[in-house]
Amino acid sequence: MKNSIGTGVILTLFGESHGPAVGVVLDGLAPGLPVDESAIEEALSRRRPAGPADTARVEPDSFRILSGVYRGRTTGTPLTIVIPNENVRSADYSQLERVARPSHADYTAQMKYHGFQDPRGGGHFSGRVTAGIVAAGAICRQALSSKGILLGTHILRCGGVEDAPFTDVASEVARIEARRFPLILDLEDQVEAAVLAAKREQDSLGGMIQTGICGLPAGLGEPWFDSLEGVLARAVFAVGGIKGIEFGDGFGLAALRGSQANDPFRMQDGRVVTATNRSGGINGGITNGMPVLFNMAVKPTPSISRKQQTVDFVEGKETELGLTGRHDPAIIRRICPVVTALVAVVLCDQLSLRFGTDFLATKL
Amino acid sequence: MKNSIGTGVILTLFGESHGPAVGVVLDGLAPGLPVDESAIEEALSRRRPAGPADTARVEPDSFRILSGVYRGRTTGTPLTIVIPNENVRSADYSQLERVARPSHADYTAQMKYHGFQDPRGGGHFSGRVTAGIVAAGAICRQALSSKGILLGTHILRCGGVEDAPFTDVASEVARIEARRFPLILDLEDQVEAAVLAAKREQDSLGGMIQTGICGLPAGLGEPWFDSLEGVLARAVFAVGGIKGIEFGDGFGLAALRGSQANDPFRMQDGRVVTATNRSGGINGGITNGMPVLFNMAVKPTPSISRKQQTVDFVEGKETELGLTGRHDPAIIRRICPVVTALVAVVLCDQLSLRFGTDFLATKL
Amino acid sequence: MKNSIGTGVILTLFGESHGPAVGVVLDGLAPGLPVDESAIEEALSRRRPAGPADTARVEPDSFRILSGVYRGRTTGTPLTIVIPNENVRSADYSQLERVARPSHADYTAQMKYHGFQDPRGGGHFSGRVTAGIVAAGAICRQALSSKGILLGTHILRCGGVEDAPFTDVASEVARIEARRFPLILDLEDQVEAAVLAAKREQDSLGGMIQTGICGLPAGLGEPWFDSLEGVLARAVFAVGGIKGIEFGDGFGLAALRGSQANDPFRMQDGRVVTATNRSGGINGGITNGMPVLFNMAVKPTPSISRKQQTVDFVEGKETELGLTGRHDPAIIRRICPVVTALVAVVLCDQLSLRFGTDFLATKL
Amino acid sequence: MKNSIGTGVILTLFGESHGPAVGVVLDGLAPGLPVDESAIEEALSRRRPAGPADTARVEPDSFRILSGVYRGRTTGTPLTIVIPNENVRSADYSQLERVARPSHADYTAQMKYHGFQDPRGGGHFSGRVTAGIVAAGAICRQALSSKGILLGTHILRCGGVEDAPFTDVASEVARIEARRFPLILDLEDQVEAAVLAAKREQDSLGGMIQTGICGLPAGLGEPWFDSLEGVLARAVFAVGGIKGIEFGDGFGLAALRGSQANDPFRMQDGRVVTATNRSGGINGGITNGMPVLFNMAVKPTPSISRKQQTVDFVEGKETELGLTGRHDPAIIRRICPVVTALVAVVLCDQLSLRFGTDFLATKL
Repeated sequence: MKNSIGTGVILTLFGESHGPAVGVVLDGLAPGLPVDESAIEEALSRRRPAGPADTARVEPDSFRILSGVYRGRTTGTPLTIVIPNENVRSADYSQLERVARPSHADYTAQMKYHGFQDPRGGGHFSGRVTAGIVAAGAICRQALSSKGILLGTHILRCGGVEDAPFTDVASEVARIEARRFPLILDLEDQVEAAVLAAKREQDSLGGMIQTGICGLPAGLGEPWFDSLEGVLARAVFAVGGIKGIEFGDGFGLAALRGSQANDPFRMQDGRVVTATNRSGGINGGITNGMPVLFNMAVKPTPSISRKQQTVDFVEGKETELGLTGRHDPAIIRRICPVVTALVAVVLCDQLSLRFGTDFLATKL
Repeated sequence: MKNSIGTGVILTLFGESHGPAVGVVLDGLAPGLPVDESAIEEALSRRRPAGPADTARVEPDSFRILSGVYRGRTTGTPLTIVIPNENVRSADYSQLERVARPSHADYTAQMKYHGFQDPRGGGHFSGRVTAGIVAAGAICRQALSSKGILLGTHILRCGGVEDAPFTDVASEVARIEARRFPLILDLEDQVEAAVLAAKREQDSLGGMIQTGICGLPAGLGEPWFDSLEGVLARAVFAVGGIKGIEFGDGFGLAALRGSQANDPFRMQDGRVVTATNRSGGINGGITNGMPVLFNMAVKPTPSISRKQQTVDFVEGKETELGLTGRHDPAIIRRICPVVTALVAVVLCDQLSLRFGTDFLATKL
Repeated sequence: MKNSIGTGVILTLFGESHGPAVGVVLDGLAPGLPVDESAIEEALSRRRPAGPADTARVEPDSFRILSGVYRGRTTGTPLTIVIPNENVRSADYSQLERVARPSHADYTAQMKYHGFQDPRGGGHFSGRVTAGIVAAGAICRQALSSKGILLGTHILRCGGVEDAPFTDVASEVARIEARRFPLILDLEDQVEAAVLAAKREQDSLGGMIQTGICGLPAGLGEPWFDSLEGVLARAVFAVGGIKGIEFGDGFGLAALRGSQANDPFRMQDGRVVTATNRSGGINGGITNGMPVLFNMAVKPTPSISRKQQTVDFVEGKETELGLTGRHDPAIIRRICPVVTALVAVVLCDQLSLRFGTDFLATKL
Repeated sequence: MKNSIGTGVILTLFGESHGPAVGVVLDGLAPGLPVDESAIEEALSRRRPAGPADTARVEPDSFRILSGVYRGRTTGTPLTIVIPNENVRSADYSQLERVARPSHADYTAQMKYHGFQDPRGGGHFSGRVTAGIVAAGAICRQALSSKGILLGTHILRCGGVEDAPFTDVASEVARIEARRFPLILDLEDQVEAAVLAAKREQDSLGGMIQTGICGLPAGLGEPWFDSLEGVLARAVFAVGGIKGIEFGDGFGLAALRGSQANDPFRMQDGRVVTATNRSGGINGGITNGMPVLFNMAVKPTPSISRKQQTVDFVEGKETELGLTGRHDPAIIRRICPVVTALVAVVLCDQLSLRFGTDFLATKL
């Protein structure tokens, strides 16, 4: 499926960083879902560069819905959103057509597309393409929310600053999204300072992020290849900067014994719950009704201004690269709404497959 | 696709732990690939319980190929392997139909299948089902090997014992598979001792494993939803015990700066290589020609003999569970060949999509 | 997907005519559906050769369910049925490895599989493989029936004999399946005589068949690529002998004007119906609640005993072929239950996608 | 996949008749294919209304490529084409929100989308949506042509006028596309007269069309569910007006005996050919190297001006409908380039799967 994901609800991504537009087709949504353009705008604004800790390229993200919405509601047919690229600097990209940024996709794109890829601003590999995901996710998220399913993503760790993990997803999502940086605790200034410090040294920062979902019914996911873990992992690894994912206590579980790692079941108000949630809400690939929690490793942005050793892959010789251009010293702030959006799309897909295409729109 | 994975080469899994058989259909293989039954046997033997550190249920794994092979070679039509369940103990499973093992799939299966699931020995969720994966993977692996693509999986960490990470995949794979436990260093006795210690305390152990692949061409994978990371992650999360995956330095990259994390490109013997391999051979979702490396977190086996707090989900009341039955105190030894097999299938799929259905069989 | 079909309910086919077995994996069925082995047997018996008008190779079709059924009901996990090949005549097939039967798949198999295909009895292209479809379809059909959805297939035309088209699917399905040949009218002797006449002349017969489905809800299918017509057509063209399909009046509509071809809507007992059903129950790719009706062209069996002009494709020279072996002089009788089974699987898939995975099992 | 088709090359369709735009995303194309905008324009012009025999709504079809093309060639990433709707008449569509045109999709859309569908001009069901298919197909067709694969579609029968079937696809395709109406023989005036006669009587016409493909390699297609017949049928049934398809002699084969229907193999210039081509170039679902030929039944346009009996499906009562608005008295002329385009996309997909993603671009 390449640039598409999903079976019942299917997202297809298109666009290049410096082409006319980026965008998304979202097929299979239930008919009758409200499409709130201000919610899309708000989600896009959370992804937008917002200060010295982000890239200097700020796009207005003035999206346009081309299909699939009628009288403010989804029709059930493919919903297309196009977001024109407006702030494109007519730079000279001839260098990046032959000199590979270390740990970026320049060289692998060359090996895959034989020199026909659009190299301007990273082309189809650019983070710019995630704007379409965020727009689509905003619609999905609203549909989920009407069923009591809430989700969000925050910075768990960045530049030595450590946020608290989710303990009450529903209330913490609101708090995260009210801040300048997606954090549960009041650590915005500290994170920003760390990013700016890296930037001053012509360098970049990575970090860890965490996604939390509450309100999901138990019984979602499949035992083997469509385990919810597998489906979510495949989705989030679409984002180039993500290099690891762990569910619940993840790598921490590897060092425990079963008696420490297992989540004892209990009854609470007539419902089955677990006393702890080290499994991150998933057992055997299937939700158990507890909040779904997972952490992701975000590598530091590979585009840095410092001189780096690399190769000219057209001539096949070693060279040095000192990037100018506009780059994020850290994408961790901007990656959070992208992951949330991707996860929202995946959940709509899963719920549609399980409960039918109309499920999210029932009782309008 | 649920119990299937792949687009060009498609694996479909079936079977229950105590049903008549487990097995696999492998569709889309190139015609003319040699099918070496002894290689399948050998792979199955690496997955088979082999001593006091494993479960007491030892199956002969006497597989039978039902279709897709003619005169010792693949026909190109679906290849079906059936592995009968022979050592099935006629135990009383009525307890597991209503009492959920903590962190196991008993409760989630109930929520998904409404009580119609086969509870005997974990049913379709049982590790027993991975025998089919291993058999299919053995065929794929042989095809890969004929193209110079080698891969393997070893225990990286278990019970306080730490193995060396891959530094030269090709030679280390052979070493790993020559040992009783899949380890690069000579640490078999230490790992076994750790597992037996846990077993004595009616407990279980988790750990970390690492997979290495060498010989892959650069340019494999897709920029977004079929990134090689996403595709591999989806595959390995099929294994219930895996709760995390990281590529290259993974979570370690989160704490670095770009200047530390980036892999500088260099020329070596006329080929583009990277000086370090913190990216694990993948940039932007696509192989860069360096070895692909990734680590996985394996949680401790949830089935332990110690008394645990849990619920009777049919009656909706709290209860205690003290398991008898036959269980692995650690699955980490047996999970390694399963992951290798899954990855081999995924690679055949990717190569088939990229280079055509006959690629793996060319120049017979 | 090659040998698989479906998205929510997925059928995977395997096996060769003279290999150990043919079979099927049916994944995604709702849990809790009753699996009546006698219904499977009965469906298989309708596909089985039954007299001088069929091939002399009669297989007992003693199937075995390997997975996915527990206590007589579907578990919701993959259901595997294996049907061993028992009556395999150890003939000399070396001729068919190089001499192509005209209009059969021998030559195309060679071009696709490069000589590695199993040529014995047609290998994976054999009608024998449809036994798996019929077994899977019997389970699906029973599930549909519990929701009031009935379907069947009959011979519409064969050897100059013409049956009546469906006018009341529900009652006619029962009548069809009570006869030796699937016919609405009492024309069994006439059809049999026509087939035997062709057989005496070392020749074969084709014909037309019709499938009818009643009880489907309106609103099933998609506007473009998953139109119900497209989905059903893709399914039935799996059967090698089928060379054409038309929905409702099909090719007859091509000669009409809109005022003649359109089906006027009417109200009947508070429900929207159409006065005529020239559209075959489908408008714009989606069911309208009327019976779904479609006709298929079945070409005459290509394997005939008469001498035919052909080529030796290994040596690349012209030659003659006079078949011995056991062949059906007409497959039209045996193809009907296969098409019914395929359609039953497709309908379960469509209903599962539309109404959720549990739909067919609700209110057990 | 709903509004998408393909596995290696994937087309996704979007748009409504009176929404802002229709369009298409084409993913998986080989990188480096030339994108000739004038060829797209020419293909769109063949689909455009062109006189009194077509609808009075003429759209300029001024398409815009939003992604996937760089310096006049495909990048290998998703190629998006948007075609704005410009000639939209602000008519009152309130009638069609409740009164179903007989044999059109108004009622089935209501049952599927519960009243949230866009009813203006047929919404997503409108033939307008096929403009995107034609644009995408033009690119695919050019790629095929560079490999010697030519294809086209012509009117075989309409209003009593009968064209000659394909006998030499390569030369006839050019002839067809040089005419005002897609016909092999010089029968344009006769066909136009028949359509105008129907129009004068406030009625519409159907007909039969034929597609021919030459230059395909033998060995393309799969034995069962991805038979080339099944894949092509699924594609063309996307077009609402198509109600039947037959390959080669199709329904004509049903009345023949094997000795008449079989295509004898012969050698010609060292290549295997068949003396006749009643199978339409496909045996056992796989190409045999002869031209692929298939006919389709096109029903008369359901939208006619004559008074028709129908229902108000919101109030659930019978009523009459006399359409005004702009409609085609016959779509048979305009449907030909749509079918050609769909088939071109399907063939690129099949070739990509068989020979790898770069196949169509090799030796640029």
